[in-house]
Amino acid sequence: MTGTDAPSERTRVQRAPQRAAYDRATIEAILDEGLTCHVGFAVEGQPYVIPTNYGRVGDRLYLHGSSASRMLRSLRDGIPVCVTVTLLDGLVLARSAYHHSMNYRSVVVLGTAVEVTDPAERLLGLEAVSEHVLRGRWREVRPPSDKELRATMVLRLPVTETSAKIRTGPPLDDEEDYALPCWAGVIPLQLAPQPPVPDPRLAAGIALPASVREYRRPQPR
Amino acid sequence: MTGTDAPSERTRVQRAPQRAAYDRATIEAILDEGLTCHVGFAVEGQPYVIPTNYGRVGDRLYLHGSSASRMLRSLRDGIPVCVTVTLLDGLVLARSAYHHSMNYRSVVVLGTAVEVTDPAERLLGLEAVSEHVLRGRWREVRPPSDKELRATMVLRLPVTETSAKIRTGPPLDDEEDYALPCWAGVIPLQLAPQPPVPDPRLAAGIALPASVREYRRPQPR
Repeated sequence: MTGTDAPSERTRVQRAPQRAAYDRATIEAILDEGLTCHVGFAVEGQPYVIPTNYGRVGDRLYLHGSSASRMLRSLRDGIPVCVTVTLLDGLVLARSAYHHSMNYRSVVVLGTAVEVTDPAERLLGLEAVSEHVLRGRWREVRPPSDKELRATMVLRLPVTETSAKIRTGPPLDDEEDYALPCWAGVIPLQLAPQPPVPDPRLAAGIALPASVREYRRPQPR
Repeated sequence: MTGTDAPSERTRVQRAPQRAAYDRATIEAILDEGLTCHVGFAVEGQPYVIPTNYGRVGDRLYLHGSSASRMLRSLRDGIPVCVTVTLLDGLVLARSAYHHSMNYRSVVVLGTAVEVTDPAERLLGLEAVSEHVLRGRWREVRPPSDKELRATMVLRLPVTETSAKIRTGPPLDDEEDYALPCWAGVIPLQLAPQPPVPDPRLAAGIALPASVREYRRPQPR
């Protein structure tokens, strides 16, 4: 797809179309920078929106969770799903209430998920979710046991029917409002990791690994 | 409702019920600390999840946007909606891949929204959304004109069918894994405002108001 073509009518951004992006590099960069997603699905006509972790491998998103999860059990039945990733970049403070806004980057992925049953792809998906949160962690920890794997469901969602919406930059006021004696600008926002807090049961003499010590958002490419 | 009773079967937390909270003080505190919400609704069987701002007045959530918004036009028709607010508090790093988790606080509100038509309540809702993002801003800026108000839709959603889910604290590993020579603990996360960036067109001599200069997340009560 090009930068101006939506992959489907229902992923075409309708409000503020100048904020739309449909090119893969933009969409993947937002998916990779996001930490969690919000998964939307409907059961008996009622939509639910649940925050969860995810990982990306190429054009596939992986979700995981308990095999008993109502959300995952609903999704693996092939019902339509929407996965949304939102990055909040700043508060846009205009001179008029009406032109206040947010700077943000968001991606919407529509489609249907399938349960991953191949053992190698299940591990790949779980590793992708783990590395998405904290790169390097997967190889530092005890890997999943057979029993844990049996208790875990992995779902795959293709990143094909998707679009991004982005707002950047300063406020855009009505021309006559620029003369108002009112401060205007942007308060940038960052999701900022704080110093790690050791587990109270951490054994003596175990050093912080570099993955944790140097953790920052977004993780470097 | 009490701390242990869900207001409806469909808001009862099913996975990890020890993380559920149903008391109003907990739910309102999460709603008040969140900056944006994710709104879930279905059109022609396809769920959509859209990030947006909101405000709370008592047991009412207010949403607003363009009168031409597909989302708002769908919602005002009275279709079922789910509004989810998620606060990410930290990465929970266990000694096993399986027990990794996130610390978070989230609220789900189910129901149907109605369009607010009373002019006074419309202004109240818009002020609530504005003050939710940045307290004090509403009185610093040019208020909405009649034309701007005509272009704006305000919706109200009751905060009645709702539940919270919360995870706090250190990782919980399998007993035998505590002996592993692996660092474990929590990386706390904060949504951190950065120094304000003035609009390039800001006139000379306009000082930063205290509302912006002292802005922090969460806003003090």
